Amino acid sequence: MTAVTRREHDLLGDRDIPADAYWGVHTLRATENFPITGTAISAYPHLIDALAAVKEAAALANEELGLLEPAKAAAIVAACREIRDGKLHDQFVVDVVQGGAGTSTNMNANEVVANRALELLGHAKGEYQYLHPNEDVNLSQSTNDVYPTAVKIATVFAVRGLLKAMAVLQDSFARKAVEFRDVLKMGRTQLQDAVPMTLGQEFSAYAVMVDEDRSRLAEAVELIHEINLGATAIGTGLNAPAGYAESARRHLAEITGLPLVTAANLVEATQDCGAFVQMSGVLKRIAVKLSKSCNDLRLLSSGPRAGLGEINLPPVQAGSSIMPGKVNPVIPEVVNQVAFEVIGNDVTITMAAEAGQLQLNAFEPIILHSLSESLTHLRAACLTLAERCVDGITANTEELRRTVENSIGLVTALNPHIGYTAATDIAKEALATGRGVAELVLEKGLLPADTLAGLLRPEVLAGSAAPVV
Amino acid sequence: MTAVTRREHDLLGDRDIPADAYWGVHTLRATENFPITGTAISAYPHLIDALAAVKEAAALANEELGLLEPAKAAAIVAACREIRDGKLHDQFVVDVVQGGAGTSTNMNANEVVANRALELLGHAKGEYQYLHPNEDVNLSQSTNDVYPTAVKIATVFAVRGLLKAMAVLQDSFARKAVEFRDVLKMGRTQLQDAVPMTLGQEFSAYAVMVDEDRSRLAEAVELIHEINLGATAIGTGLNAPAGYAESARRHLAEITGLPLVTAANLVEATQDCGAFVQMSGVLKRIAVKLSKSCNDLRLLSSGPRAGLGEINLPPVQAGSSIMPGKVNPVIPEVVNQVAFEVIGNDVTITMAAEAGQLQLNAFEPIILHSLSESLTHLRAACLTLAERCVDGITANTEELRRTVENSIGLVTALNPHIGYTAATDIAKEALATGRGVAELVLEKGLLPADTLAGLLRPEVLAGSAAPVV
Amino acid sequence: MTAVTRREHDLLGDRDIPADAYWGVHTLRATENFPITGTAISAYPHLIDALAAVKEAAALANEELGLLEPAKAAAIVAACREIRDGKLHDQFVVDVVQGGAGTSTNMNANEVVANRALELLGHAKGEYQYLHPNEDVNLSQSTNDVYPTAVKIATVFAVRGLLKAMAVLQDSFARKAVEFRDVLKMGRTQLQDAVPMTLGQEFSAYAVMVDEDRSRLAEAVELIHEINLGATAIGTGLNAPAGYAESARRHLAEITGLPLVTAANLVEATQDCGAFVQMSGVLKRIAVKLSKSCNDLRLLSSGPRAGLGEINLPPVQAGSSIMPGKVNPVIPEVVNQVAFEVIGNDVTITMAAEAGQLQLNAFEPIILHSLSESLTHLRAACLTLAERCVDGITANTEELRRTVENSIGLVTALNPHIGYTAATDIAKEALATGRGVAELVLEKGLLPADTLAGLLRPEVLAGSAAPVV
Amino acid sequence: MTAVTRREHDLLGDRDIPADAYWGVHTLRATENFPITGTAISAYPHLIDALAAVKEAAALANEELGLLEPAKAAAIVAACREIRDGKLHDQFVVDVVQGGAGTSTNMNANEVVANRALELLGHAKGEYQYLHPNEDVNLSQSTNDVYPTAVKIATVFAVRGLLKAMAVLQDSFARKAVEFRDVLKMGRTQLQDAVPMTLGQEFSAYAVMVDEDRSRLAEAVELIHEINLGATAIGTGLNAPAGYAESARRHLAEITGLPLVTAANLVEATQDCGAFVQMSGVLKRIAVKLSKSCNDLRLLSSGPRAGLGEINLPPVQAGSSIMPGKVNPVIPEVVNQVAFEVIGNDVTITMAAEAGQLQLNAFEPIILHSLSESLTHLRAACLTLAERCVDGITANTEELRRTVENSIGLVTALNPHIGYTAATDIAKEALATGRGVAELVLEKGLLPADTLAGLLRPEVLAGSAAPVV
Repeated sequence: MTAVTRREHDLLGDRDIPADAYWGVHTLRATENFPITGTAISAYPHLIDALAAVKEAAALANEELGLLEPAKAAAIVAACREIRDGKLHDQFVVDVVQGGAGTSTNMNANEVVANRALELLGHAKGEYQYLHPNEDVNLSQSTNDVYPTAVKIATVFAVRGLLKAMAVLQDSFARKAVEFRDVLKMGRTQLQDAVPMTLGQEFSAYAVMVDEDRSRLAEAVELIHEINLGATAIGTGLNAPAGYAESARRHLAEITGLPLVTAANLVEATQDCGAFVQMSGVLKRIAVKLSKSCNDLRLLSSGPRAGLGEINLPPVQAGSSIMPGKVNPVIPEVVNQVAFEVIGNDVTITMAAEAGQLQLNAFEPIILHSLSESLTHLRAACLTLAERCVDGITANTEELRRTVENSIGLVTALNPHIGYTAATDIAKEALATGRGVAELVLEKGLLPADTLAGLLRPEVLAGSAAPVV
Repeated sequence: MTAVTRREHDLLGDRDIPADAYWGVHTLRATENFPITGTAISAYPHLIDALAAVKEAAALANEELGLLEPAKAAAIVAACREIRDGKLHDQFVVDVVQGGAGTSTNMNANEVVANRALELLGHAKGEYQYLHPNEDVNLSQSTNDVYPTAVKIATVFAVRGLLKAMAVLQDSFARKAVEFRDVLKMGRTQLQDAVPMTLGQEFSAYAVMVDEDRSRLAEAVELIHEINLGATAIGTGLNAPAGYAESARRHLAEITGLPLVTAANLVEATQDCGAFVQMSGVLKRIAVKLSKSCNDLRLLSSGPRAGLGEINLPPVQAGSSIMPGKVNPVIPEVVNQVAFEVIGNDVTITMAAEAGQLQLNAFEPIILHSLSESLTHLRAACLTLAERCVDGITANTEELRRTVENSIGLVTALNPHIGYTAATDIAKEALATGRGVAELVLEKGLLPADTLAGLLRPEVLAGSAAPVV
Repeated sequence: MTAVTRREHDLLGDRDIPADAYWGVHTLRATENFPITGTAISAYPHLIDALAAVKEAAALANEELGLLEPAKAAAIVAACREIRDGKLHDQFVVDVVQGGAGTSTNMNANEVVANRALELLGHAKGEYQYLHPNEDVNLSQSTNDVYPTAVKIATVFAVRGLLKAMAVLQDSFARKAVEFRDVLKMGRTQLQDAVPMTLGQEFSAYAVMVDEDRSRLAEAVELIHEINLGATAIGTGLNAPAGYAESARRHLAEITGLPLVTAANLVEATQDCGAFVQMSGVLKRIAVKLSKSCNDLRLLSSGPRAGLGEINLPPVQAGSSIMPGKVNPVIPEVVNQVAFEVIGNDVTITMAAEAGQLQLNAFEPIILHSLSESLTHLRAACLTLAERCVDGITANTEELRRTVENSIGLVTALNPHIGYTAATDIAKEALATGRGVAELVLEKGLLPADTLAGLLRPEVLAGSAAPVV
Repeated sequence: MTAVTRREHDLLGDRDIPADAYWGVHTLRATENFPITGTAISAYPHLIDALAAVKEAAALANEELGLLEPAKAAAIVAACREIRDGKLHDQFVVDVVQGGAGTSTNMNANEVVANRALELLGHAKGEYQYLHPNEDVNLSQSTNDVYPTAVKIATVFAVRGLLKAMAVLQDSFARKAVEFRDVLKMGRTQLQDAVPMTLGQEFSAYAVMVDEDRSRLAEAVELIHEINLGATAIGTGLNAPAGYAESARRHLAEITGLPLVTAANLVEATQDCGAFVQMSGVLKRIAVKLSKSCNDLRLLSSGPRAGLGEINLPPVQAGSSIMPGKVNPVIPEVVNQVAFEVIGNDVTITMAAEAGQLQLNAFEPIILHSLSESLTHLRAACLTLAERCVDGITANTEELRRTVENSIGLVTALNPHIGYTAATDIAKEALATGRGVAELVLEKGLLPADTLAGLLRPEVLAGSAAPVV
């Protein structure tokens, strides 16, 4: 009969650990200390992959510098690769929101890697005399360089997912811009009828917004490639030998395929959360634009009879439990809500970053959590919006054209020809009488009929700005 | 020839002060130290009145307790009353955003009161041997009880102004609720046509929102009546004799006419900014509702021809420098912007409150500034919205009725009689064909004509919910 | 061999549903439409209980008014009670963040209740001809009154949990206030040495803060008891018969044990999110105070040798993966992070509330999600802080006393006796020379020795403000 | 006797204008409509300069394209140059927070330029038949391209001021980094003693933070150089002739000296506020870092006897109205408050940007106001911090060194030599007994004395990270 627990020891004393657990005493205490969200770091696969990559890179650097026996290094590397292959993720059990600047996450990783490596070396879990979580797996490292480095790598991975989703959304908008390039409609400023444009121009603007935001995100993620591995506790590199930072960076870059660079000033890099604040600020920008676009889509599709009724969103579910036949803009609505969440997360991240003190910011776990939520929810929102909404949008072309012909805003186009003052009088009369602008201009003999017709041609009215595709 | 300066002395040395200035060396240094916003506390008359009231109450309490000679007390009281009569406000010259937890504001008040009191006693400004800013005017006080107390009194004054403005706005909405009580229109959920209602019900909801917010604001201001005068530096009351706190509170309540109470735990009260956070939270709530109402007004008045066109906002200025005859919803727009400002200010106040440390919050000056801005701008926004917009709103009654008759949402009213499933089929057919719901129901023989007519009567459709006025 | 699926039908066509699923076609579409957070509403047991309570109350009211056959009503009630007993929670599968104003959550509830009721009536799941999700379970209801009502009830449940946790934390602080009532220490303002106090006074302030916040929370939750059940789609009560609103409210109050009231103006109540904004604002206030208290605890326990070192937090885990023996304030740190999250959530809730349009706020799902997160995380944070930190705090009594005796701030107590100007000179000399205040006062003959000793007695210095317990 | 008023006319009727006013009827109505903040746009000189530059560039482009007579163009240009020379700023009287998307600001500019140009042409103010505010000064323009373009130029000007102030602050920090390069001290993580470093490294980190933020700000301001002049009302360029956009841009670039570019898609550019959100996000990042640095300065200078007492901030004013000799960190405190304001402003800007609808964002005035406040207050804060605080900081060198020698954190340096487990035991014993780490290591014979001495040399402990200057 085998034991169901093993005994481990730390600063505070002895504790029994389930025999089959790859995590150890430090992790156990952390799970007891942080019963906050119920969400373990196992729910953040990018982070776990990143942690394993860092541990692997550190082991290789330590071996290279003669600090770690090749056999131990090989076992650590093998354990890390298993984790990066998706194994043992369920062993990452500490709550994502935790005190201690990520120490518990790092300890959890050290313990899982150590115990798996011990097994690979033919030892039992917990036989740390052969390979120790702190003295071997964490060799030349501190939570204070491992955790921020892992969070950055995880962020880069997540940003890549978002960038792809944004490209999908941009394409959706751009295809609609082409499809609707000849659909003439009234443009609006301040919700009031303004001057004519095409629906293609309108969708083109959404495509361009996404495109610009992608550029900003791609710029912001560059800053995230700067890591502080080798800084150890406070950036002075205490206990990390000469050459370690560069070797570990090189291995980590190879393992992850990312063009990582080591920060020039490691003391500053170890306490600084600026890159996360900047990243979150860009995500907020993206959220603002997405939300604005979704507000527009909901407005343009309002109706079917008492709204603007310019476009139709594809129905994806029955809209109401009481109103038969009602179809609601549920996809834009869910995107709006993700946007509000991202904007709130930005405040959380801002406060956490501001609260850092002296040589460290102890609040990176909530930054990781909030940033990760913003990134993954935005990605889901972009894909959902593209595939379940934008791709199926249709236009009420005939009605849109009638609105232009019937509009008072047409008079603006006559401004250079009849003057702002005369145009204002025409506008006032049209509004008061319900009559058409063209009709009034002709009646008053302000312009010859053929000149007027020329000025009111759609391609003139909508300007030369072609849809961007 | 008279001197143009007088010399004053403090911890840091001597400085020359303009001879005609009522402020002194502490104020001079503060103006040099805080060249931040360019807005002096003279721009906050409520605060200056409140400071003068506190200084007056303290002098009376000190006299009562035998700490201050009657002649000095009388001179201080007389100086404070002049200030409360609107004099010497221009002598309050320190920047509203300042370090030092309000010390510079308190010092500015001490100096102005002392110098005016000196004059009243027949001395020259600066002859502090006869009456001293710190030893007499500030006797038994600390910035740490004077400043929060004054900020609270100033806040109460400003809240009263806002409450009155909200009552004006509520009345405006309520009058429209009565005026539009019989105007039938389509209600909308998620911007989609829902079921019928009256425009009076719609405006009634706005009136009720303001009314509820007034109740919340009236509750929140109660908390602001709790002061910490007598706490001195950290709440232990060091240097304030027994009986001082109660005497000063009593005099201050008389002077201001406010039902002030002294906090039960002065240590807590001296470091706590909870009442300001709560007040700002309620202002944020008000801002949210105001903004939502203005969003609706802008939406309902969209058009004139390519929008919802349900109501008309009174034109208050030409809307466009290029589009003749355009009239924009500029009043709701400015209210929206005030709302965004108030919501941002709430974050500022929250951060400032969170940043307090140990026995004091050093960041009350920015709380004062932000709270004061929120209160006065909201007040202006409510009055402007009532008087320049709501009061002049008219309804497009006929068009609204036609929309109801033409709507698919009518089918919901038939739900209990023909069932959700059959009603859904009618709705789908109406949408696809453009035909009317009633017509289709009769054609399919789902209901007899007279039953149908009964179900579609306006008073049935709009429910029994009468406008609240 | 039994079928593995059943076929259901909606506005958009037919879909196959897993035969053992209690949810149906509307839920299926919603799960496809909202692949956003990966968190289903099953993770919100309070919400599910509340939904079941609402459905049960509605069935009872419908039966009472003769709209629903007793047998159907009984089956619905029985199904709801099973759910409230914790069964079938795994059938609530839609993502918590969803478009559609909660329609999918309501539909999910309607389908689960209907299918379980069908089983109880001896029918197969999906045989809606016998009992229909919309026509029977949702009878007299709309998502627009069901969902907000359920969210409110769930919120009340969660607030109760938080109130209890806050009481636990208050008790912990209050016990320490008693324990430390005679521990003399320097009070600090702006992080600078100010005047003496006791550590008991310091902890008493934390206890009072929590106590005040509990009062504010208890007030705010009152507003949440106002529901709009009976409003149906937009507050006009269309399709709900006379008497329904009152009957449903009465049953719901009985079922939940809550003193629920029906809003006076249902049109307003259906579009209004003010109570949620207010609740979130109070949670933000609580977060601000908790964070401030935790900042203080971290500061006071800084050290062990290069910090303030006034108190010792109980060690709960090893603090560092690199620095042996380091113990960190991990519990206050995790509470800080929860506070930042709550403050961010408040911005999310604010934006969602502001975005409501016309007769409905479509963004309540993110309000539910954020509010629920704030409430449950704050509850966990309070309990963790009390049990894993405050209860085990010890004081470095001797060192604290020495700091008082050695302090320059003592001179403030002499102010009324030697004057602010003389006291300032003593303070400057003490600072420059490193000598003690008492020593200098005696040397200069400013006060007799016995008078001085009397003024510097601890009970005088720390004032009369007794710890609140 | 001359008339004291002149009569002007607009869409709404006739109004009397003070005869000496350069503004006209549109401005008059705006001042009546927006009595919100009491702050006129005259308080924003960068904006007025930018508006004049835009009007001048437009006039030159219109002349070049044959739309505007040379004499009129010359008069407009001359009037604009007067304004850019600082004249007539007091004529810009509309409230900065205004509805109408900036129309009133644009109208105010049109009227002032027109009336001054009329005078230069020998006409009286108001004789618009000779030169018209809308038909001539605003020719080929709309508020919707003029206002955003002017706001951008004003922002660029303000950013330049901030960049210079940040450079001053960076230099101050860098000089201290050099001055303190040999001052050994304990580094801290999570406020707990960690491992040794130099005070120079600490200040170097602050210098690097400012340097990085300057780079981010310089990047963000690049985006602000993209303008939409030529877009007119909605981006279609209606009423602006071919070639106008390019000509106006070229003139504007010459006038301002800025490398302006015209947006590729003017429809998008006219509705987009992304560049402002991004800019505000970067300002928030700067605020976060500044605030963190000031928190540190306040912490490190805490004391003088019961605090960390590592550094001394220069006294700039007496700290307390009650505590003699107290000197407070008032300069860092005011910087903290500016930071909180900037973070709140970012939320305001975010909400305003999100609220844009369809072809325009009507809320740019509050964006301008908030952004301008953030920029100018941050500039003042940086200069004040540098000149009134950082430049005068001194270090308590001897005490800092003693703290290192006495620290337990030294044991970390021995980790690689005696192992994490043995080091933990030493740390525990040192903490329990109050004895020194070195002493215990020698006593237990864990390391030879000379090896130990070598490991504890300052340059080893503080690492190789040299101060960046």
